[in-house]
Amino acid sequence: MTHKINHIAIVVPNLNEALGFWRDALALDLERTEENPGENVNIAFMEVGGTHIELLEPTDSNSGIGKYMEKRGPGLHHICLEVDDIEATMQRLRDHHIELINEAPKTRSEDGVRYAFVHPRSTFGVLVELYELPH
Amino acid sequence: MTHKINHIAIVVPNLNEALGFWRDALALDLERTEENPGENVNIAFMEVGGTHIELLEPTDSNSGIGKYMEKRGPGLHHICLEVDDIEATMQRLRDHHIELINEAPKTRSEDGVRYAFVHPRSTFGVLVELYELPH
Repeated sequence: MTHKINHIAIVVPNLNEALGFWRDALALDLERTEENPGENVNIAFMEVGGTHIELLEPTDSNSGIGKYMEKRGPGLHHICLEVDDIEATMQRLRDHHIELINEAPKTRSEDGVRYAFVHPRSTFGVLVELYELPH
Repeated sequence: MTHKINHIAIVVPNLNEALGFWRDALALDLERTEENPGENVNIAFMEVGGTHIELLEPTDSNSGIGKYMEKRGPGLHHICLEVDDIEATMQRLRDHHIELINEAPKTRSEDGVRYAFVHPRSTFGVLVELYELPH
């Protein structure tokens, strides 16, 4: 069961300039910013109607997000769907011949969120992330 | 005041094949499909947690969406934010030097929704639509 859109991730060249649109002009609530040296990104989290908008600023052009921005330019990057049971959802996707990037869910150490990505080859170009929140 | 994400629009080469992922594999609820010959698209509407996912299949490669797909490929196309007062939001954006595609809101005849697009030049590549629902 897929019950909400957890977040929409957007690649931006510069977090402060992008906040000039999302936070200042559009007046969305900035929840927090975070440095993630492991993934080579700085992130700003905003919230609108229960869904988060995540702005991702690559800090290294050789990282995954950095290479994405070099190739595709900034813009919409992925959407993340919250599911009740990530393993059941992944099995269902496999049964429908959908290719997964992660064969098993990963677990984020800070908050226990389990996540996996679906390959855009199977979704006509949309990178889809699945989240299972801790129960 | 921006209070929710109304929809996320995704360009797909073929509606039925894309529904194989979104409806069949992911088990999202298909609300309806619609032919829109004016915009040269067929559309499938799904719902997840109060936000709609709209799949847009261009029916003419010379239309706006058709040209987009030729140039950028299929994938995430735009996000639409619901606002209370679209004219106030547009004025606020102008005050922050944000470029709008539509200088005044348009009104959709079927349901009275007022809408306008923000230019992706001002948002680092994200096409943002604003919706004001009828009060």
